[in-house]
Amino acid sequence: MSAGSPEQTPFSEDRLIAGLRRLLSGDAPGVDIGVGDDAAVVELGRHPAVLTTDLLVEGVHFRRSATSAHDLGYKAIAVNVSDVAAMGGSPRYATVSLGLRSGEETPFVMELYGGMLEAAEEYGLAVVGGDLSRADRVVISVSLVGEVAKGRAVARSGARPGDRIVVTGALGAAAGGLQLSEAAPSKVHDALGAEWARELFAAQARPVARVGEGQTLAQAGATAMMDLSDGLSLDLSRLCAESGVGARVERHLLPVAAGLFDLQKVLGIDPVELALHGGEDYELLATLPAEAVEPTLRKLGERFGTSLAEVGEITDQTGVLTLSGDDGAEAPLEPRGWDHFARG
Amino acid sequence: MSAGSPEQTPFSEDRLIAGLRRLLSGDAPGVDIGVGDDAAVVELGRHPAVLTTDLLVEGVHFRRSATSAHDLGYKAIAVNVSDVAAMGGSPRYATVSLGLRSGEETPFVMELYGGMLEAAEEYGLAVVGGDLSRADRVVISVSLVGEVAKGRAVARSGARPGDRIVVTGALGAAAGGLQLSEAAPSKVHDALGAEWARELFAAQARPVARVGEGQTLAQAGATAMMDLSDGLSLDLSRLCAESGVGARVERHLLPVAAGLFDLQKVLGIDPVELALHGGEDYELLATLPAEAVEPTLRKLGERFGTSLAEVGEITDQTGVLTLSGDDGAEAPLEPRGWDHFARG
Repeated sequence: MSAGSPEQTPFSEDRLIAGLRRLLSGDAPGVDIGVGDDAAVVELGRHPAVLTTDLLVEGVHFRRSATSAHDLGYKAIAVNVSDVAAMGGSPRYATVSLGLRSGEETPFVMELYGGMLEAAEEYGLAVVGGDLSRADRVVISVSLVGEVAKGRAVARSGARPGDRIVVTGALGAAAGGLQLSEAAPSKVHDALGAEWARELFAAQARPVARVGEGQTLAQAGATAMMDLSDGLSLDLSRLCAESGVGARVERHLLPVAAGLFDLQKVLGIDPVELALHGGEDYELLATLPAEAVEPTLRKLGERFGTSLAEVGEITDQTGVLTLSGDDGAEAPLEPRGWDHFARG
Repeated sequence: MSAGSPEQTPFSEDRLIAGLRRLLSGDAPGVDIGVGDDAAVVELGRHPAVLTTDLLVEGVHFRRSATSAHDLGYKAIAVNVSDVAAMGGSPRYATVSLGLRSGEETPFVMELYGGMLEAAEEYGLAVVGGDLSRADRVVISVSLVGEVAKGRAVARSGARPGDRIVVTGALGAAAGGLQLSEAAPSKVHDALGAEWARELFAAQARPVARVGEGQTLAQAGATAMMDLSDGLSLDLSRLCAESGVGARVERHLLPVAAGLFDLQKVLGIDPVELALHGGEDYELLATLPAEAVEPTLRKLGERFGTSLAEVGEITDQTGVLTLSGDDGAEAPLEPRGWDHFARG
C-alpha cells in the first residue's frame, strides 16, 4: 500500500481487470459469481472436489523468447488439467494468479489469457477469478478445481506387485522439442521446416492433457496413476515410493516419440534416453491388473485414438527400479528426470 | 526437464515434499487424498464453493528482512481467508504454490509452513496440496476453496443509494506499521518498545480475517461487501463502480486505529490519511440497509468483540465519492490506495 499519491500508469490493476473481464465470459455454467469480486462462487454438485495448483516462473519453466504468450497461457491451464486427469477427475474451474513486470505490455497479457481461454474451452472449464501483482519476471500460478466420482480417484499409492505398468501416447517428444529449441541455430537450421521438428516443438509448447483417458483408466481399475511431468524414470520412482513397490521396465517396449529418431540424426541424442528421462510429456503413467491391459488399450484407441503401451511390471522389491535391455540383461534404472531444485 | 544428470543438492523437491508431508497432517476432516499426489481430493458438501487466490512476491508484497517466515506464512493464508470472508463464506481447503531460490534454507520453508498451519488451524481449514518451484525470489501463491450457503454470497455489486457504509474494526494500523518499519531507525528508536508500536507492526505482519463477522454481515442483509486490502478510498471506489453508485464518507466517523495518533507524534503522518488510503487492514467494508446497522453492530460486539463503524452513505451519483470534513464541507474523495501496478 502507499499513503502517497500513485503514479497513474496505463497499466493499472483495475484497468487490466476490466479488460480481462471483457475477455472472460461470466456466464459459464455453474458460475454464480465470476471474475472481479473478492472470490468466485461456483456450483460443484455432490462429487468430491479435486484441487491442484502449478507455478510457472519465467526463466525456470519458460523463456519469453522461446514461447508465444498464447502457447504459454494454454500450457499453464493444460498442465493443471493434466494433474486432475491423473486422478481420474474432470476439470471445472480455474483461478489464475499473475505476477507481471511493471512495463509488461497489455497485448502480452491479453494473448496469455487468450491461450488460457482456448485451453479452458477445450477442457470444458471456466476461468473464474484471480489476482494480479507486480513482479520482476512473469509468474503464472494456476489453481484448478475439478470433480471426481466418489471413490473413483486414483492415487499414486495403490500399485501392487504383478500390476502392469502402462503409459499413454509416446514419450520424449517434449524433451526433444526443448533440445531442438536450445540447440545452436547452425546445427538445426535444415530441420526447422520439417514436420517432425514442428511436432516436437508443439509437444513442448502445447502439451495435451489426457482427461478422457484418465477416466477410462480409472474405470478400468488402475491401481495407481500419475501424469508424466518430470520424466518416466523419476515419476515412476515416485509412484513406486508411494506404493512401497519396485518396477521393471522393458527398454524395447518404450513408446519412443517418432520424431526423436529424426532428432538423433541432427543432434545425436539417444531417443530412448529422452523417452526415459525427458519431462513435460504430460502423458499418463498408470498401473493396471494384467487382465485389464488389453481391453483398456482397445477402449483408449476406440474412444480417443490414443495408444497405450505396456512398458513393464511392478515388483515386490521396494524402491528398486530396473531396466531390461534389448538383450534381456537387467540394469538399475536411475531416476534422473527434472527436479526443479536439483537444477539450481 | 533435463535429460542430463542432475546435481544432487540437499534441497531436492522430493525431499522437501517429504518433510512437508510430515508437517501437514493428512487426516483433516473431508480430505480423501491430501498432499503428495497429483491433486488433492476433498469433500465439499452441497454448498456452492468459494474460490480465491493471492500471489505474494518478495520485494513487492514483503521483504525477507522485515518479516519472519512464520508471520509470512500466516499472512499468506489469512489474506485469502479474508477474501472468502468478504463473500460471507467459510474457508475449507488451501493449496500452496511456492517459488524458492535454489539456495533457500529448509528452516525458512518449514517456518513458513508453520505459520501457514497456525493460520489454517485458527481458521479451520486444511492445507491439502501444492507445488514447489525454483525462482529467483520467494513467490507464494495460495489458493483457497471455501463454502457459502446457497444464495448467501455477497458480491460487490449490490449497494443501493441510501445504504449505510460500514467497516469492521479500525483502519490504518497496517499502513502505520509499514511506515514505522520503513522509517529511519534513529527517528523511531524510542517508539519500538511501546505497546502501540507493537500493535501497528502486528497489524501489518499478522492481519486478522473477519470470517464470523462476514457471515453475520451477510445474514444481516449486507447488499455489498469486500475486504479492505488496498485502502478504504480505492476499495470503496471499486465497490461503487461495481454497484453503479456513489458514496459520501464522513471524516469524523472514520474508525482511526488508536496507535496512529502515537505514530503521528513520532513521524508526523496524518492518522486520517492512513485510515482513508492505507492498505492491508483486511477489515470488511459493507453496505447495509439503514435499519440493519444498529442490530448488526450489537451482534458483532456480542459474538466477536468486533466494532462496526458507520462511516457514510451510498448515493445515486454514480462514481462520485466525497469526503465530508469536520466542518460539514464536502470535498472529492480521491481513490489513492495501493495499486500493485501504479507503484511500478
